Amino acid sequence: MNIRQLASKLQEVRDRNPLVHNITNVVVTNFTANGLLALGASPVMAYAKQEAADIAGIAGALVLNIGTLNEVEVEAMKIAGRAANERGVPVVLDPVGAGASAYRTETARSLLSAIRISIVRGNAAEVANLIGRDWAIRGVDAGATGGDVVGLAKEAALKLGTAVVVSGATDIVSDGTRTVAVHGGDAFLTRVTGAGCLLTSVIGAFAAVCEDPVEASVAALATYSVAAELAASRTREQGPGSFQIAFLDRLWSVTAGDVERLGKAEEIEG
Amino acid sequence: MNIRQLASKLQEVRDRNPLVHNITNVVVTNFTANGLLALGASPVMAYAKQEAADIAGIAGALVLNIGTLNEVEVEAMKIAGRAANERGVPVVLDPVGAGASAYRTETARSLLSAIRISIVRGNAAEVANLIGRDWAIRGVDAGATGGDVVGLAKEAALKLGTAVVVSGATDIVSDGTRTVAVHGGDAFLTRVTGAGCLLTSVIGAFAAVCEDPVEASVAALATYSVAAELAASRTREQGPGSFQIAFLDRLWSVTAGDVERLGKAEEIEG
Amino acid sequence: MNIRQLASKLQEVRDRNPLVHNITNVVVTNFTANGLLALGASPVMAYAKQEAADIAGIAGALVLNIGTLNEVEVEAMKIAGRAANERGVPVVLDPVGAGASAYRTETARSLLSAIRISIVRGNAAEVANLIGRDWAIRGVDAGATGGDVVGLAKEAALKLGTAVVVSGATDIVSDGTRTVAVHGGDAFLTRVTGAGCLLTSVIGAFAAVCEDPVEASVAALATYSVAAELAASRTREQGPGSFQIAFLDRLWSVTAGDVERLGKAEEIEG
Repeated sequence: MNIRQLASKLQEVRDRNPLVHNITNVVVTNFTANGLLALGASPVMAYAKQEAADIAGIAGALVLNIGTLNEVEVEAMKIAGRAANERGVPVVLDPVGAGASAYRTETARSLLSAIRISIVRGNAAEVANLIGRDWAIRGVDAGATGGDVVGLAKEAALKLGTAVVVSGATDIVSDGTRTVAVHGGDAFLTRVTGAGCLLTSVIGAFAAVCEDPVEASVAALATYSVAAELAASRTREQGPGSFQIAFLDRLWSVTAGDVERLGKAEEIEG
Repeated sequence: MNIRQLASKLQEVRDRNPLVHNITNVVVTNFTANGLLALGASPVMAYAKQEAADIAGIAGALVLNIGTLNEVEVEAMKIAGRAANERGVPVVLDPVGAGASAYRTETARSLLSAIRISIVRGNAAEVANLIGRDWAIRGVDAGATGGDVVGLAKEAALKLGTAVVVSGATDIVSDGTRTVAVHGGDAFLTRVTGAGCLLTSVIGAFAAVCEDPVEASVAALATYSVAAELAASRTREQGPGSFQIAFLDRLWSVTAGDVERLGKAEEIEG
Repeated sequence: MNIRQLASKLQEVRDRNPLVHNITNVVVTNFTANGLLALGASPVMAYAKQEAADIAGIAGALVLNIGTLNEVEVEAMKIAGRAANERGVPVVLDPVGAGASAYRTETARSLLSAIRISIVRGNAAEVANLIGRDWAIRGVDAGATGGDVVGLAKEAALKLGTAVVVSGATDIVSDGTRTVAVHGGDAFLTRVTGAGCLLTSVIGAFAAVCEDPVEASVAALATYSVAAELAASRTREQGPGSFQIAFLDRLWSVTAGDVERLGKAEEIEG
């Protein structure tokens, strides 16, 4: 994994300004759209079944997020997902709160079986629940971790047939064969609602310009972590409100050079 | 009402990090979640009837807010409310805009009759409309006040069989027997959408760690007012955008000591 | 078009604090409400068909935005629109993404035929698609412009029988007879989601206090552009997160004097 090469993907996102179609939850729509705009991508939210296929078909990536799911939206997700599959548009899934209710777990699984997903991003509990392994979860936020996250990511990738990103203090990316750890970021991210959801959409933006799902994910994670570190260094004394705004600023101003200099990704041996 | 004892509830919220289940309006979801995260609680939004009971059952408090209600959500609110009642989870209701349309007034009343509510928080017009008293209302924001707010809070508490918080320049809390006035806060709160809705959810967070609804409400109001004052003192010259961000910062950094030093709550005689 | 007279409309918005009823998309509700509150108007979001007429009937303006439309909301829009028409409440339409999907284009047209609309605001591609002219569109953001925007605005106004605002680097307002160009603003607005949607709602606030749709639009655009310029001058080095907050601050602090001094509107010869 060459960090310089990955960092160059950021410039590609900005140059190509990919359209990212999000069917996401009502809590994070605004922050997701602003984060994608700051980064240099172009967000579109379209939830109606009448237009889900039209929009997914012209998008560079489709991001599905079950944070506040309902039946109508799940139907739209499937329509959009199939249209994306037909046109080769990568689909990224965020199984928010999988495990917190049976409905979420089942919905996430039914999306995985109805649609060819490229990348799944969640915290350890969500990913574990997707593949039927026990893991502490409480609500939609990450439970205490410390388990074998690398093993979890690999196993999930093999079972789901997708690349898997397990977010945490260290993020793990795996497609079952290659596994990469991305260090960095900042704990303030856990005090901003939708920081995980936006990360999933940012992975979507990188997937739109980078065919390899592991590389797209690592490039996205490195960019995100570096932007968070730069934002936190200025707002440590203020709090999560100021951090949130500084983070949007940094998604806009972070350069490929910053990512190359500050990003910390390392491949993990088999 | 011992302010030192109330202030200690803030530390309890942070230590216990209660899960607050919100079924709230689409305008304020993000701000509500960020405010709860900043304070040290853990927000979850879950609206589907398929999971409303699951989530309410694991929550420390359930907050129902009718700000942009629709039939589907009202059904989910009732399912969640009954599950919360069965497990002894306190339920807080925000009757946003009760009186502004017949639909809102009727829905708020039907929730009050279907669910055992612990605390109702609204402005004077909303609370008055709930109990069939005339009070100026226009849209969802507070109308001109100046009526007998203390009498209103007491009467509403007795009629509704809940604790009642009437928000205004001075906030009044009553369960019909004890009545407390909480002073402070800042007029900038009226320029931030969802400041009242977030307050209701913050009351939910305190209710999750404090059994007495009056004490929980007073502790929440004192914390909220002090955080607002601290935020306003730094952003007076800038405006409501900067205030909003500083307020999130202060919900994170305000201490029990600040609340003890700056909070102003007084019990009202008879 | 007398800029001093237009600038005075800002003071009228603040003095009369008009209630603006928004049926808008889930991405921008919070920002729209905060922008209207900052400006001095009073936002209300109400989407249920059971109350859409009640709320529209007491509002100073009704704003319809199809950014994340669905069948249920479209029905509520028509109910609200008819109630507004009956009571002489001006209706402003934002055809977000018209042209990006057949569903959006058709919905926007069906609203235009079911309701008497006063003002339509969109980017060039959206407005062009409404009247069946080809124009580059991608997703919900403005495509490359450079066509005959003045001609487009005039033609659309005549065909639709409304005033039309075409947003861009220079904004064009036309009712088919009078045409006005408003210069200014800042490119940061294109990095804040909902900047166009909020503008439409701000036009609604001005329409509530100013009968002439062209004057209301020009006054709103001049105010908006000046607030954006003032906000950008302080946040140029930071980024779109800081700009967004400073912009809310400036909507609150910008004065009629600022608009008179810095606003740039010019009537365009027939």
